[in-house]
Amino acid sequence: MHALVYHGPGRKVWEEVPKPVILDDTDAIVRVDATTICGSDLHILKGDVPEVTDGRILGHEAVGTVESVGRSVKNVRPGDRVLVSCISACGACSYCRESRYGQCTGGGGWILGHIIDGTQAEFVRVPFADTSTYPVPAGAEDEDILMLSDILPTGYEVGVLNGQVRPGDVVAVVGVGPIGLSAIMGARLYSPSHIVAIDLADSRLEAAKQFGADVTVNSGREDPLEVVRSLTGGLGADVAIEAVGVPATFELATTLIRPCGHVANIGVHGQPATLHLEQLWTRDVTITTGLVDTSSIPTLLRLLGDHLEVRPFVTHHFAMRDFVAAYETFERAADTGALKVVVTP
Amino acid sequence: MHALVYHGPGRKVWEEVPKPVILDDTDAIVRVDATTICGSDLHILKGDVPEVTDGRILGHEAVGTVESVGRSVKNVRPGDRVLVSCISACGACSYCRESRYGQCTGGGGWILGHIIDGTQAEFVRVPFADTSTYPVPAGAEDEDILMLSDILPTGYEVGVLNGQVRPGDVVAVVGVGPIGLSAIMGARLYSPSHIVAIDLADSRLEAAKQFGADVTVNSGREDPLEVVRSLTGGLGADVAIEAVGVPATFELATTLIRPCGHVANIGVHGQPATLHLEQLWTRDVTITTGLVDTSSIPTLLRLLGDHLEVRPFVTHHFAMRDFVAAYETFERAADTGALKVVVTP
Amino acid sequence: MHALVYHGPGRKVWEEVPKPVILDDTDAIVRVDATTICGSDLHILKGDVPEVTDGRILGHEAVGTVESVGRSVKNVRPGDRVLVSCISACGACSYCRESRYGQCTGGGGWILGHIIDGTQAEFVRVPFADTSTYPVPAGAEDEDILMLSDILPTGYEVGVLNGQVRPGDVVAVVGVGPIGLSAIMGARLYSPSHIVAIDLADSRLEAAKQFGADVTVNSGREDPLEVVRSLTGGLGADVAIEAVGVPATFELATTLIRPCGHVANIGVHGQPATLHLEQLWTRDVTITTGLVDTSSIPTLLRLLGDHLEVRPFVTHHFAMRDFVAAYETFERAADTGALKVVVTP
Amino acid sequence: MHALVYHGPGRKVWEEVPKPVILDDTDAIVRVDATTICGSDLHILKGDVPEVTDGRILGHEAVGTVESVGRSVKNVRPGDRVLVSCISACGACSYCRESRYGQCTGGGGWILGHIIDGTQAEFVRVPFADTSTYPVPAGAEDEDILMLSDILPTGYEVGVLNGQVRPGDVVAVVGVGPIGLSAIMGARLYSPSHIVAIDLADSRLEAAKQFGADVTVNSGREDPLEVVRSLTGGLGADVAIEAVGVPATFELATTLIRPCGHVANIGVHGQPATLHLEQLWTRDVTITTGLVDTSSIPTLLRLLGDHLEVRPFVTHHFAMRDFVAAYETFERAADTGALKVVVTP
Repeated sequence: MHALVYHGPGRKVWEEVPKPVILDDTDAIVRVDATTICGSDLHILKGDVPEVTDGRILGHEAVGTVESVGRSVKNVRPGDRVLVSCISACGACSYCRESRYGQCTGGGGWILGHIIDGTQAEFVRVPFADTSTYPVPAGAEDEDILMLSDILPTGYEVGVLNGQVRPGDVVAVVGVGPIGLSAIMGARLYSPSHIVAIDLADSRLEAAKQFGADVTVNSGREDPLEVVRSLTGGLGADVAIEAVGVPATFELATTLIRPCGHVANIGVHGQPATLHLEQLWTRDVTITTGLVDTSSIPTLLRLLGDHLEVRPFVTHHFAMRDFVAAYETFERAADTGALKVVVTP
Repeated sequence: MHALVYHGPGRKVWEEVPKPVILDDTDAIVRVDATTICGSDLHILKGDVPEVTDGRILGHEAVGTVESVGRSVKNVRPGDRVLVSCISACGACSYCRESRYGQCTGGGGWILGHIIDGTQAEFVRVPFADTSTYPVPAGAEDEDILMLSDILPTGYEVGVLNGQVRPGDVVAVVGVGPIGLSAIMGARLYSPSHIVAIDLADSRLEAAKQFGADVTVNSGREDPLEVVRSLTGGLGADVAIEAVGVPATFELATTLIRPCGHVANIGVHGQPATLHLEQLWTRDVTITTGLVDTSSIPTLLRLLGDHLEVRPFVTHHFAMRDFVAAYETFERAADTGALKVVVTP
Repeated sequence: MHALVYHGPGRKVWEEVPKPVILDDTDAIVRVDATTICGSDLHILKGDVPEVTDGRILGHEAVGTVESVGRSVKNVRPGDRVLVSCISACGACSYCRESRYGQCTGGGGWILGHIIDGTQAEFVRVPFADTSTYPVPAGAEDEDILMLSDILPTGYEVGVLNGQVRPGDVVAVVGVGPIGLSAIMGARLYSPSHIVAIDLADSRLEAAKQFGADVTVNSGREDPLEVVRSLTGGLGADVAIEAVGVPATFELATTLIRPCGHVANIGVHGQPATLHLEQLWTRDVTITTGLVDTSSIPTLLRLLGDHLEVRPFVTHHFAMRDFVAAYETFERAADTGALKVVVTP
Repeated sequence: MHALVYHGPGRKVWEEVPKPVILDDTDAIVRVDATTICGSDLHILKGDVPEVTDGRILGHEAVGTVESVGRSVKNVRPGDRVLVSCISACGACSYCRESRYGQCTGGGGWILGHIIDGTQAEFVRVPFADTSTYPVPAGAEDEDILMLSDILPTGYEVGVLNGQVRPGDVVAVVGVGPIGLSAIMGARLYSPSHIVAIDLADSRLEAAKQFGADVTVNSGREDPLEVVRSLTGGLGADVAIEAVGVPATFELATTLIRPCGHVANIGVHGQPATLHLEQLWTRDVTITTGLVDTSSIPTLLRLLGDHLEVRPFVTHHFAMRDFVAAYETFERAADTGALKVVVTP
């Protein structure tokens, strides 16, 4: 088969590789019907993720059709259409038993396209298939389901649920790239009174409006704190969601919230931030970090359609043989307007 | 009457001042039967709290007897023995209505000995008496009740409740001065499996054992992370409570916790700390800060006695006329072993 | 002034009565700009509520303009437009301090039009004005705000919040009169995947569709359990909200829910129901009852407008002098299609 | 091997049966080192549990040594000492993934000694071994660990956690047989201010004192409601735990609680109870039912010893060949004082 293979920083090739085989009784081999590229794939290609070694097939998001399963797999059968979670769950460790699959200590967690070969391929071996795949509802489109593999659960769990968004809240989202947009989409499920999108790029702010932000702030021209205060009688936002991953945006998020507010960090950080405890110590703030668990996939699957329209995430389509072009389009999002690119056989 | 009056950094005098009078219909005038000194009084005397101006009577903890009340006061009558909360609550603002009195926007919050005259005096004016005082149960001793004015609610609410201590948890307490000890005492109400006390002073660690820590770590000689990991199968503490207020101890607290753990900051910080988001972003941590609300006073009052023995906090007694000596004993805690000094008429 | 006065079972008269005066320092006198009739007013008129005695002015919902206030009232001033909560809150008892105003032990709770004179009058005395009224946002219409006095908080707090509705849930609402409709409206704030409305009257089921139910079941013709099971893979509803108040509908609600589901009772019951513990004891169910607290009024006020369109509740308008006709229209809801009738001076 | 076999109502025999073998890849065969008898075994013998058919080996509690495992079992190895949970968990269904193993829809739940052969035997086949057994900590005694197989998790999860016991609460336990005692032991982990034990037998009330109740009420002689009200300023208990399983005790529990209180039903009910909604509808009560999940076993294992002394549960010891005598002693608990009888090879 063919796959997108990492060969060290900056080097990725769509090349012929051996087709994966069942290694464990709990594995499934899945034919990939649709996959996509994530911001973390770009981090890997920059060389920022040293666990990823030469020869690794990238990718951790897929919708596909089960080809074969190990002898212990009970809930998935050949021929089933499945959503492959970006997080593998052993199902038996103390973290998995509390639905915290991202912290799995039994061999799961984020492993696809990271520690083992991933989904940017014609076939993928999916460990712990019973607890790491989800049946695709009849009639659902691959590319809609694909948005539930990583991006939407990430915005929803790490942003919205960790941030404890409630009806009537004012929610500030700092950074409205694809992850920030997924947080906006997830936040709307809880009927906040206002979603304030904050970014430096007008094009992203325009997208944020389409996704449901009702106030947008270009922080290069306006002071987000002033906007948020004007909406909240001077108090600050109930929830601030950080979706960039640099110190300045994290620090901004901590200044935007009201006493008793929540800062939910989703951003992937490469360096420390400054925490202004000299101001925050009396303000009853809660700050959370998190890797997605994808425990919300069943919930999000039930909402797909009328309640949750994910199609606007899909901006581009590619065939697998053009995978390198798909990467280029995704990398140059500022120019191409790419949010998620869907890659199919 | 006489009171302990602040006259700028480093200057405090026990001197004659006018007796307080009812200013608002919701005030009570309380004769102080017992008061004490808090670490924040020392901060004020260093000049760190600029809102406190020359002439201010210090102190925010008291047990006393009501002398007179404003005409709207309904639940408190002259002659009642009352606990005066360190936090005043207007009772009507949005924060007070959710029991978050520390964030009161209606004129309360921490005001005694801060924005208005305080309790280190023969008499004190207590605003919002209906919602800022609590009846003393019959038979209770003044000096036990006094521990519920600030220190025990602080350790319990900001440390234990914010940290979400649960039965079976491993709880690390970083810094075991009086506030850390109150966190230990409060944590025991939830039956953690282990309480690990961490400090640089053996004398404080010895006190921590008396208060219920079952593991002590002198971080000058031992590595707290190693100790905590050995108790937790390598995972880290479920909860880490910061009770010092300097960057190094806060950062230590964030390294001690397991994935999905909680860091509860109680410490009073004068400068920012570094938050290692490059490590923490995937670890599902929750970090909280907080000013005490004293919403737990009714609960703690019910537990006083068999379930909650607070007397060990009281290490020294002084008469009010020796208030300056009381301060000296409290300031030199390392030498005197002072935890809380009780000052009575 | 004139008011609608109760003179024993079945007897109500719009008659001249003395204008109310300030009795307590915490009172406000409010000129009623809009009031309405509640199902519990009908219960009173049937003689089912013995605490209501001859001569009582009925009504517990109002929007009005403050005419005068007692000397301790701080947050409300003459001339202010206010929403009068159906629940009075002393603000100082242990229940009020936890936002459980419906259980106030300090003289509040449901008292208007019950223990003291109510809002179906030209003027009303509102006790505890600081904690029992809410400012009307500039530009809001009286009749929209009026829906937040009782009916919408009741459906939201006692139905939706007690029932712990979450995104993706299947919510069954048993009985879709005005209270059931308010539960539907409130439930939508949490984005359930399906709201199933169950009733015997097609006209009410039609209204339920307008309010947001996506499945309707006429339980005279169809089996609600079968419908709910077909939507939930045989498991049952996540949440069942009882909004009728008779044993049969309560028992239906307990059969509709899945293991680990929630039954939230809103209905006013006059007799006991049978609880089938022989079936339920293993099913991990949670059953709640509740009187509204109106603690959600600030949240609902923030959502009014785009997020929460309450106008469809208002089906009829009357002038106060036609109050008896307003009652007749409301009583004969099956014929008149009345949901809420708005009565203005 | 030999086992205790059910042969229809009233008939049980310790007889020779085939030794169990691995049927599924996820099974373990465990040599039983200690087992015990549960109240539900007596229900079965009365013929009350029709799913149990002639020839079934009874028993669902055990501590043992793993003899062999199916090829997919990863976390348990031959020779390991394990606690066998009374609840089997498939680990992959939606309930198991939220730690609600009692409601497992993947073939688990309460199956041992019920749907499949149980633990009152020399060997037992344990399905889903990875998620249904727990390693015994080094140095722990079999008979202590055995109390965590069913009885202690049941009291803790279904009584204490469902009842949401908090520090300072007044907790009423209705019925203090073994299950009521386990609820008392579990409640103490949350430091209630008072635990009120209610029963008709003075001997059980005496045991309740040993287990930590601080108030006992013989409801044949005293009015429990009066006692509870006298402890709570007339309000009622914060939590009432039903541990009998008949209508009268359930109805008592619902009268004992304060507004906003919790009733947690643990009792096994064979008939409906009356729910006095005509009184309860305004009282903001929460009523829960539940089958144990045993999700608390890891927590309870960490507490075993100093924090949780379970040995007082063990009143009698028998050898397996005397299993029938063990049943007789357990059945005549009123005479023998039996709480839990430990049966060993």
